[in-house]
Amino acid sequence: MTEKTAITPATHTVPPAKFSHGVRKGDILQVAGQVGFLPAVEGQAPTVAGPTLREQTLQTLANVASVLQEGGASWDDVMMIRVYLTDTDHFAEMNEIYNAYFEEQGLKEAPAARTTVYVGLPKGLLVEIDALAVLG
Amino acid sequence: MTEKTAITPATHTVPPAKFSHGVRKGDILQVAGQVGFLPAVEGQAPTVAGPTLREQTLQTLANVASVLQEGGASWDDVMMIRVYLTDTDHFAEMNEIYNAYFEEQGLKEAPAARTTVYVGLPKGLLVEIDALAVLG
Amino acid sequence: MTEKTAITPATHTVPPAKFSHGVRKGDILQVAGQVGFLPAVEGQAPTVAGPTLREQTLQTLANVASVLQEGGASWDDVMMIRVYLTDTDHFAEMNEIYNAYFEEQGLKEAPAARTTVYVGLPKGLLVEIDALAVLG
Repeated sequence: MTEKTAITPATHTVPPAKFSHGVRKGDILQVAGQVGFLPAVEGQAPTVAGPTLREQTLQTLANVASVLQEGGASWDDVMMIRVYLTDTDHFAEMNEIYNAYFEEQGLKEAPAARTTVYVGLPKGLLVEIDALAVLG
Repeated sequence: MTEKTAITPATHTVPPAKFSHGVRKGDILQVAGQVGFLPAVEGQAPTVAGPTLREQTLQTLANVASVLQEGGASWDDVMMIRVYLTDTDHFAEMNEIYNAYFEEQGLKEAPAARTTVYVGLPKGLLVEIDALAVLG
Repeated sequence: MTEKTAITPATHTVPPAKFSHGVRKGDILQVAGQVGFLPAVEGQAPTVAGPTLREQTLQTLANVASVLQEGGASWDDVMMIRVYLTDTDHFAEMNEIYNAYFEEQGLKEAPAARTTVYVGLPKGLLVEIDALAVLG
C-alpha cells in the first residue's frame, strides 16, 4: 500500500479549510489551486503579492513551484496546468508572463498541457493555478 | 491490459448524457461532477436536496462518497477535490460545512488538495464537486 | 525513468503560449483544453469551425480525438472529460451532439466521467473540452 502524503511548504499560508496545498501518492502529485499570496507571516492574514496580473501570476507560479519542490517534483514532471483568470482581456498578458517565467526556468522541451478558463475568484484575486504532476 | 469500469451507484440519477458518475481503471478512480440530487426515484426527475447551500453541499459530498465507495475507494484515497460554487459569498459557509463533514468522516491526516472556483451552474444548483482518487 | 512526451498533432494550431496540446508520461495522457479551431493552415490565424454550438462541439471533440490518437490512445482510454460551456441554455443541445458523436464512435460500455461547468471563454468560442486518459 502506497501512502498518501500532504505537502505543506513552510512558506505557505494555512488553507482556509481542511485541504492540503498538495498531495502525493506514489508517482502522482496534485497541487491545489494556488493564488498570489506572499509567503505566510505568522499571525497575519494572507496578503496578495500585489494588485497587478504580473505580480499575482508570478507569485502564483512560485507557489505552485514550492509545492512541487516540497513534494519532490519539478515543473518537468507537470502534466497539466489549469489557469483560472477572471477576465478574457488578461489572456495575452498572462501568456507573456507565463512564457517568460518558463523560459527563465529553463524548462525542457515538453511543457505541460494547459486549460485556461474565465471564472469568478474571491475579491482582489486575478488568477488561480493548479497542477497535476506524474513523477518517476 | 487493465479494464476501465463504469461506476454507477444504484442511488444515483441517470446522467443527462453518455457519461458515467465514476470510472475506475487500475488504481485511478475519477468521480464525475456531482450535484445535490437526492437518491433517484424511478420515474421521477432528479430532485435537489433543498434550496440551501448546506443541504446541497452535504448531499453533493454524499453523492461523491457513494461513487467512491461503489468503486472500492474512500475519501482517504482522494487526491483532488474540485469545488464549483456560483457565488464568492458562499465560500466561508461552504468551508464550514466541508470541514464539519470531513471531521465527522474521521478523515486521516492528509486530506486531498482542492481548487474552488466560481462558475455558472444550471438553475437551482449552488454547488458541484468532482474528485480524483488514487487507490492502492 | 519514464519520459514525458509532448503530443502535437500536425493538424493543430500552434498553442498561444508555452504549453502542449497533449502530454503523455507512461500510462497517463492529458489533453489540453481544445476549442473548435479548424485544422491549422500555415500563415493563417486559427479559425473557428463556425458560429454554432454544433459546429464548435464537433470540431472540439475531433481535436481532442486527434490528440488522443497522436498519443496512442482512444476515447476508450479516457477517464474524465471536462466540458466548459458559456451558457447554461446550451446544456441540452451539447448533450445531444455529444451523445450522437459517441454513438458514431461506437464507444464501448464504460464512457468517461464528465464535469460540465459554465465559464467565460474568449470571444466567439462557445465550448472548450479537455480530457484525462489512462492507457494500458
